[in-house]
Amino acid sequence: MIERIAIIGTGLLGASTGLALRASGFRGFIVGCNRGPEGARISLAARAIDSIATDPLQAARESQVIVLATPVYAILEWMERLSGVLGSEHLVTDVGSTKGLITAAASRLFNRPDRAAFLPGHPMAGKERSGADLGDAELFRGAVWLFTDDPAWERSPHSAALVEGWREWVAAMGSKVIDIDPARHDEMVAWVSHLPQFLATALSALLEEEIGDAPELKDVGGRALREMTRLGASPYSMWRDIALTNTEAVQSALSALEQRLANLRENLRTPGLRDEFEIANRFRRE
Amino acid sequence: MIERIAIIGTGLLGASTGLALRASGFRGFIVGCNRGPEGARISLAARAIDSIATDPLQAARESQVIVLATPVYAILEWMERLSGVLGSEHLVTDVGSTKGLITAAASRLFNRPDRAAFLPGHPMAGKERSGADLGDAELFRGAVWLFTDDPAWERSPHSAALVEGWREWVAAMGSKVIDIDPARHDEMVAWVSHLPQFLATALSALLEEEIGDAPELKDVGGRALREMTRLGASPYSMWRDIALTNTEAVQSALSALEQRLANLRENLRTPGLRDEFEIANRFRRE
Repeated sequence: MIERIAIIGTGLLGASTGLALRASGFRGFIVGCNRGPEGARISLAARAIDSIATDPLQAARESQVIVLATPVYAILEWMERLSGVLGSEHLVTDVGSTKGLITAAASRLFNRPDRAAFLPGHPMAGKERSGADLGDAELFRGAVWLFTDDPAWERSPHSAALVEGWREWVAAMGSKVIDIDPARHDEMVAWVSHLPQFLATALSALLEEEIGDAPELKDVGGRALREMTRLGASPYSMWRDIALTNTEAVQSALSALEQRLANLRENLRTPGLRDEFEIANRFRRE
Repeated sequence: MIERIAIIGTGLLGASTGLALRASGFRGFIVGCNRGPEGARISLAARAIDSIATDPLQAARESQVIVLATPVYAILEWMERLSGVLGSEHLVTDVGSTKGLITAAASRLFNRPDRAAFLPGHPMAGKERSGADLGDAELFRGAVWLFTDDPAWERSPHSAALVEGWREWVAAMGSKVIDIDPARHDEMVAWVSHLPQFLATALSALLEEEIGDAPELKDVGGRALREMTRLGASPYSMWRDIALTNTEAVQSALSALEQRLANLRENLRTPGLRDEFEIANRFRRE
């Protein structure tokens, strides 16, 4: 039923969405646009999109589903712009990393019978580097794709059907769909996604200043060091909006980890260290 | 020239040493022993060793090279016991994780013309779980194998030749040999090995208490969370002696990371976050 899709923002996630749709059997038309023209050209060459939109608002109007795949603040801006030009025959969805502000904007701007539907989404997949050239048709296979849909939203039958259609494509791309409350989403990803990222950034920055001039020491650290610092390559451009839109939850998680590290440091020579290892072992029990 | 090797402690590293020697073409005899009889039996069944020593001191006397592959304090105990029964026709070496105490004991107990040689070693390889059943002939391939040898030590020509022979076997097992001062070793591994481990333990323990009762949330974290907590499975039995024998260096590294995390937390909404990401990116530049 979905035959025309617009992808706004053809970076890693946008390009991967186009490639994954194709690999999952989508035979309709995919138009894309990107702030940087190179990302759009790469996506076109990789056949993640079929054409580059010269007028994104018109391309959105001519599509049934519009996927917003930019950082969070740009998603919020696109929501404002699109809400004025789309109607009940459209579905807008997104892949943004925090869901509180986006879901609130979806309530305010979309999801009434005479307006377009908006389905807030968040695929838990990514890489430590960004860009269309890393686009991957298999990126979402086996990953969890979270939605913060609101059962109270009233949609036109047409846009409600598009919502169901998009959920089916997400499943076809190999993701496991989970619905969750937006506040709970943001609190949860602070623990399982944002904390690991900011921790890897702090560890990598610390090690850069301690041993950055002795690259042979990185080899000494081996696989464990490589894994613990892989996310250190993540770009600020991607994480800035996450830090700005989920500040309190991230601060709480970082603060809790600081206290945990201080406690471990003070217990290196006491039985408290054994207790800490045993709790950690439970997290990784198989 | 080396024809008989004794491996004391056939856990992950000891069993892997036997398997790697065989895979690299060692055709002599390997005897092994282990505190827990199961680890010795598994190593024998896997052909990591050719026989189980019933009298480890006699097995050591009958070997040319004795490899100590236990935790650090047990290595120090074996050094005491072996120094009284071995002579200038023997080489003792180890795979212990900290080198300060072991190298000092090597000066005190070994490395004189009328005594056995002791070559303190540390392969930078391992797994997050222990045990002979995880023994791996390829464990040391591509890894750095550190030695804290002391050029001032005076050895008999015979034991000096065994030292060269063992270095050649380490290279044959695929490791890159680096010689380093023992104090520098312990400071360096605090940054590139011990800090990542204790950090992963603290993060895993924190997450166990926050989300341990909701295992579906681990899937939400995906690959990034799995990587950042893999070392959370590491056993206390392996890390206790490291915490006890490298306490100050580990405390310094943990303290520096705590400060770094606090600074990042206070700068989530400032340009300081961009600076931190850029420094971290430099650590992972390719």
